[in-house]
Amino acid sequence: MSNEIPRATVERLPRYLKCLEQLIQHKRTISSTELAHLANLSPAQLRKDLSQLGSYGIRGVGYDVEQLQGEIRRELGLTRDWPVIVVGVGNLGSALAAYGGFGNRGFEIAGLYDVDPDRIGDNIQGIEIRSLDRVGRDVAARRVAIGIITTPAVAAQSTADVLVAAGISSILNFAPAVISVPSHVELRQVDLSTELQILAFYLQSRSGESAPRPRDDEP
Amino acid sequence: MSNEIPRATVERLPRYLKCLEQLIQHKRTISSTELAHLANLSPAQLRKDLSQLGSYGIRGVGYDVEQLQGEIRRELGLTRDWPVIVVGVGNLGSALAAYGGFGNRGFEIAGLYDVDPDRIGDNIQGIEIRSLDRVGRDVAARRVAIGIITTPAVAAQSTADVLVAAGISSILNFAPAVISVPSHVELRQVDLSTELQILAFYLQSRSGESAPRPRDDEP
Repeated sequence: MSNEIPRATVERLPRYLKCLEQLIQHKRTISSTELAHLANLSPAQLRKDLSQLGSYGIRGVGYDVEQLQGEIRRELGLTRDWPVIVVGVGNLGSALAAYGGFGNRGFEIAGLYDVDPDRIGDNIQGIEIRSLDRVGRDVAARRVAIGIITTPAVAAQSTADVLVAAGISSILNFAPAVISVPSHVELRQVDLSTELQILAFYLQSRSGESAPRPRDDEP
Repeated sequence: MSNEIPRATVERLPRYLKCLEQLIQHKRTISSTELAHLANLSPAQLRKDLSQLGSYGIRGVGYDVEQLQGEIRRELGLTRDWPVIVVGVGNLGSALAAYGGFGNRGFEIAGLYDVDPDRIGDNIQGIEIRSLDRVGRDVAARRVAIGIITTPAVAAQSTADVLVAAGISSILNFAPAVISVPSHVELRQVDLSTELQILAFYLQSRSGESAPRPRDDEP
């Protein structure tokens, strides 16, 4: 069953998928060591993760790139199109509405919502920006399951409340604000500074400016 | 030495940091089990990661929230301000320029660049949008180390080339395009669909629509 896969493994699947997508034009098979290297993970971790999907590779050959890609896509639920709505059509919302990386991964922007009367009625890539009041009816009619919040931080919680009331069961929050949702709703928080923090680590360690590390006592 | 910390551990540090930032108003100490739960990782993984930093916690008490936060920030190099430039001031670039989540994490937008004459000279939050021609001089003068690419996909590689020539050693690419850089440059690729893929997994497993999983043969 899909839901027996550990959360940490699920979170690594998009990374494996991305590596495989980049490989597919160049290679038919790949060893676990090579794929782990591309994904910046240990081969043991990769083999354990993929074994959760029932993918063990072939001894002496490795994984079939196309087959493994198909298995991960199926496991992630990317073999169908998921309608997604975006609430808050400022710069970030507009960018996501036009982002080239969603369509080919099984996500379709089904609606854009805002509360600003000046924005309502405009359209982005052919999708009309509608009043947030409409979201309840639209979610039911289009069977939308995923809502993306790209409002200012102060509006993030009230937007989440509206989405939950509308029947949305999965929320992706880009606003730099901590929000809470009922336990039946799946919430993911995107922090756009995460990758910058990782870059800062390597910059610091390269420049040798790392502060001496205080050892904690009492294990 | 910082650079002995495994890459996979470095990539998890921002996540621990974020959990600690959310805790700091509520708790003085936290057990490894609780913190691991918040971070969606196993306690064993968390203890192993933090031991790489020299943080072992205190037996029967756990980690001191404030102290651990300080240690991770120091390890990531977030105790100083890193000047960051953004190239491509469309919707996504504008959103990043105004993003509330950078300043308090040690990143300061030091410059915005575009090639569109209509955009050059405008400003966002007091920062002037300059011609990309200027980037070489500005990077040297401001000692900028990190460049963010938010151009359309077709311009991502040529932008990376300009940044590398200007002396930028760390690049964060938001454009949905695979780019290559010399080996001395640290490159991170942001895929805005990653979190959607994780949500899709849980949606699918909840709706019970998971396709039967083909078992691979030959282990």
